[in-house]
Amino acid sequence: MEQTIKFIGKIHSDLKKIEDCPLQENENAPAARLEIFPAYTEGIKNIAEGNKLVILTWLHQANREILKCHQRNEVGSEQLGVFSTRSPDRPNPIGLHTVTVIGIIDERMIKIMPIEVLDDTPVIDIKPLI
Amino acid sequence: MEQTIKFIGKIHSDLKKIEDCPLQENENAPAARLEIFPAYTEGIKNIAEGNKLVILTWLHQANREILKCHQRNEVGSEQLGVFSTRSPDRPNPIGLHTVTVIGIIDERMIKIMPIEVLDDTPVIDIKPLI
Repeated sequence: MEQTIKFIGKIHSDLKKIEDCPLQENENAPAARLEIFPAYTEGIKNIAEGNKLVILTWLHQANREILKCHQRNEVGSEQLGVFSTRSPDRPNPIGLHTVTVIGIIDERMIKIMPIEVLDDTPVIDIKPLI
Repeated sequence: MEQTIKFIGKIHSDLKKIEDCPLQENENAPAARLEIFPAYTEGIKNIAEGNKLVILTWLHQANREILKCHQRNEVGSEQLGVFSTRSPDRPNPIGLHTVTVIGIIDERMIKIMPIEVLDDTPVIDIKPLI
C-alpha cells in the first residue's frame, strides 16, 4: 500500500517562503530554474525551448494528514473534501504545473515559467503536455 | 532524496493485461470504477457526477530504470529522453488522466471515464481539473 518516490531534481526559485507564493500559477507566478540531478540528465536530452511541459513536484512542506479544507483560504466557507481542491496539504502532496520552457541553461538546468513553488521544492516527474 | 507515497485507492477496470491498453485515453479507453480506501473516503465527499478530475495513478507494472525510449512504440525511430515522452516506464511511474465523473456508486466508489489503466492500478491523488 506504499511505494518509494525518487526525487529527480529540484526547483530554484525566488519564492523563499510560503507567504511569497500566489495561489495558482496564473497569478503572477515567476520563472524558475529546474535542475535535474546527475543520474537523470539523459531523460531531458530532447527538451527544447518552447516545449510545453507538465512538471510534477513534491510539496515538501505540506501536511499529509489533511482530508478536508477550506477552498483557496476562504476560512468562512464550508470545508470541502481535499480531493475537490488543489490544496497542497493532502495525503500525497504532488503539485502539477503546466509550464513553458523559456531556455536551456545547460544539460542539467532548464528555465521554465510560470511556476509557484518554493525554492528547493523536489521534482518527481516531467511530461510533455498533451 | 526519497519519500513514501501512499495508495489512496485503486482502479477497477476491464483492462486485465497490458495488451488490452490503448496508447492514450482518447483512443477508445473505457469507463472504470475508482475505489477509495476507507481511510480516505472523507476526501471525496464533494465529488459529484459531471465533475472533471485529474486522476494520478501509480503504474505498478512499469520499469523504473528507463531514461530513454522509443516514442509510442515506434521501435525504428530515435530514442528520446523519457521526460519528453508519456511512457509508463520512467523513474516515478505516475499516470495522469483527465476524466469525467459519470456516476457516484457509493461513498467510496465513483465511476469515471475515459481511463486506460490496468485493473488494480493504485490511485495516489485526485484533483479538480483547472
